[in-house]
Amino acid sequence: MTIQEASDSKFGRKAIQVGEAQVRILKYAAAMESETVPLEQSMGRYLAESVTAPHPFPAFRRSGMDGYAVVAADTENCREGESVWLKVVDNIPCGAVPSERIVSGTAARIMTGAQVPEGADAVLMLEVTETRELDGIPYVGVRKPIPGGRNITPIGHELKQGEHVLAAGHQIAAGDIAVLAAFGVHAVPVVRRPKVGIFATGSELLDVKEPLQPGKIRNSNSPMLEALVREAGGVPVMLGAIADEIELARSKVQAALENYDLVITTGGVSVGDYDIMGDLVREEAGDMLFNKVAMRPGSVTTAAVRGGKLLLALSGNPGACFVGFQLFARPAIVSMQGASEPFLPEWTVVLGKDYPKVNNYTRFVRARLEVHDGSVYAFPAGIDESSVMVTIKDSDCLIIVPPEERGLPAGSKVRAMILP
Amino acid sequence: MTIQEASDSKFGRKAIQVGEAQVRILKYAAAMESETVPLEQSMGRYLAESVTAPHPFPAFRRSGMDGYAVVAADTENCREGESVWLKVVDNIPCGAVPSERIVSGTAARIMTGAQVPEGADAVLMLEVTETRELDGIPYVGVRKPIPGGRNITPIGHELKQGEHVLAAGHQIAAGDIAVLAAFGVHAVPVVRRPKVGIFATGSELLDVKEPLQPGKIRNSNSPMLEALVREAGGVPVMLGAIADEIELARSKVQAALENYDLVITTGGVSVGDYDIMGDLVREEAGDMLFNKVAMRPGSVTTAAVRGGKLLLALSGNPGACFVGFQLFARPAIVSMQGASEPFLPEWTVVLGKDYPKVNNYTRFVRARLEVHDGSVYAFPAGIDESSVMVTIKDSDCLIIVPPEERGLPAGSKVRAMILP
Repeated sequence: MTIQEASDSKFGRKAIQVGEAQVRILKYAAAMESETVPLEQSMGRYLAESVTAPHPFPAFRRSGMDGYAVVAADTENCREGESVWLKVVDNIPCGAVPSERIVSGTAARIMTGAQVPEGADAVLMLEVTETRELDGIPYVGVRKPIPGGRNITPIGHELKQGEHVLAAGHQIAAGDIAVLAAFGVHAVPVVRRPKVGIFATGSELLDVKEPLQPGKIRNSNSPMLEALVREAGGVPVMLGAIADEIELARSKVQAALENYDLVITTGGVSVGDYDIMGDLVREEAGDMLFNKVAMRPGSVTTAAVRGGKLLLALSGNPGACFVGFQLFARPAIVSMQGASEPFLPEWTVVLGKDYPKVNNYTRFVRARLEVHDGSVYAFPAGIDESSVMVTIKDSDCLIIVPPEERGLPAGSKVRAMILP
Repeated sequence: MTIQEASDSKFGRKAIQVGEAQVRILKYAAAMESETVPLEQSMGRYLAESVTAPHPFPAFRRSGMDGYAVVAADTENCREGESVWLKVVDNIPCGAVPSERIVSGTAARIMTGAQVPEGADAVLMLEVTETRELDGIPYVGVRKPIPGGRNITPIGHELKQGEHVLAAGHQIAAGDIAVLAAFGVHAVPVVRRPKVGIFATGSELLDVKEPLQPGKIRNSNSPMLEALVREAGGVPVMLGAIADEIELARSKVQAALENYDLVITTGGVSVGDYDIMGDLVREEAGDMLFNKVAMRPGSVTTAAVRGGKLLLALSGNPGACFVGFQLFARPAIVSMQGASEPFLPEWTVVLGKDYPKVNNYTRFVRARLEVHDGSVYAFPAGIDESSVMVTIKDSDCLIIVPPEERGLPAGSKVRAMILP
């Protein structure tokens, strides 16, 4: 029996794998109700419904050039080296409707983006034309033949009517906003953002505004979680820090679960005397999803469900709190917004330097990505202890070091979770 | 003389390289004044001042375990296979100040994160200890020696007092917020966000809410730019769309430059009859920075400066508008916020499929990144015409195809700008 196993059995905890823990959580992180937001507020939101094209795009034959709309066959006579002269019968600026049908021998002056008139099947670039007037009537001259279709964007070139545009669960980015705008979707159906209650436990915690006191630290996890929740699309509700008192924690948890869609706590889950969140969850075991995960840091991460709502009790160690958030809280928050993909992307990358640390649990190592000559490298951050906070800011990925490795040499291929 | 050169000379435009255009713009995109924001609103902002550690972190010797603080030398006698028994003289929860100095033969019960008492130089893990009482006095028994320093995080382990923490110009992320909180920085000095006036020109433009009309399109560039400006940290101010009338454009530009820190327009810069932004800039040439860039799409991108403020006139073609924003507007907006690095990251990546298109200008090709087995591939998006909007949403990078290439085969190493 290892020390780890002895400790687990002494404190009645049974470790489950990260993937299993995620499955248990996501069962209670179904998409919430949808709502409609103005297009300009839809960035970063998740679509509640799929979008199909209500009309072709473009909806008319569009000129790709400033120039002249012509009948392409008319220009074939240029082959003999002579200019062909066409009578200019219309002038079509952008946004206008052509007034004349183009027939053989005629042309229309047309602007980039304007609607190509009926009858015309090519647009001559302005720069390859010359003009003259004959009896007050303008003519355009062309010296080279143009193939049919040239410089005309056909109807539905980008999207046909009814074609799939965006899927439900897709997160809206700037390019999507352009498409939604083009189709007139000014009110966008998205899934509501979850309200996430956040509090910390620990008698050692000072508020960020308080001066330092002996033996105490400022509560850095709560502001970090607030930022992470917002980054994940949730609406953080800050409930402060409470001392290590189980009755206080119990009523705080209860009130938070009644008022918010999800509750995240930090601290009070380690194996020790004042681990009130652990006790709180253990004593009402029916609702517990897990209280130990086979991972470092954050093996004590605990999750429970009450009245259908998730309570995620993350470690109070900053590094473990951060990793626990990315592995469990973020997927829940994103999933509650109806995201089609709740998990962070995982890449196979090249380990940039030796990683000697071994463990019987999967380790999530804070690291920084670099790309050199087509290869992606991940460099483990300086100090990689669960209690260490300073390396969180220097990380843009988490290297996943499998258990029972003998340490990984630089150059090994490893999996890495890419942070947002 | 190529058609391109003929056109440039006919319309009095001289193309400059992208890098030169960026240099000209950034000259007028200096960091604006700083302001102070509450820590919880600082995410994504750029630090106006560097931050050094006002105190060491941790500020006291911190226990890394639940267990007992001891004098390590006392445990050396365990070597003979016998337990050593130490008198427990204190109980130190997190946040408390030790009341006793630990001397040989004594120990203090201590919690993870609590302050290690004077005299103790190691912490025994709870799980490797046993306890008993003798005449009502508690004792802790230990069977294995522990080296000095074990399970104690020294003062300043993460950061020493006065050590550099974050540089001016750094963009604040969740991990930075944790560090700022730990050091009590509840009011964060950041650079003000620029107010960015945005309008579109084009008589063909309908508002997003309007029903489609023949020959017209909905204005998709303005909402896209609004989202992009916000993503870059600017405050977008939407000024609508105006018809192709130079007087209207002139007064709009003038008012916008008076009221906002930067003005971005879209449309009206192509070589044609209604290119009012181009005309507007050309006619007051002293202020023009450039009106042609050796790039595709968006070669007509135009920039001017008026009263020290930048006017960026992007192409009305959606693809060109997007690329122009990322190359010129985003660096300006980010630089005005004091960012230490105004440009998007560039990686050398592997071209995922053939790219046959050749051009005498540098081409910025919308593409999607994929990572396979440690290598980064970029796959050009479907239709890559400047007028095409739909592939913007499918892109997370822009491949930089140098001019005068003979087309690039799959597997080539190419440079790519990584989109936010």
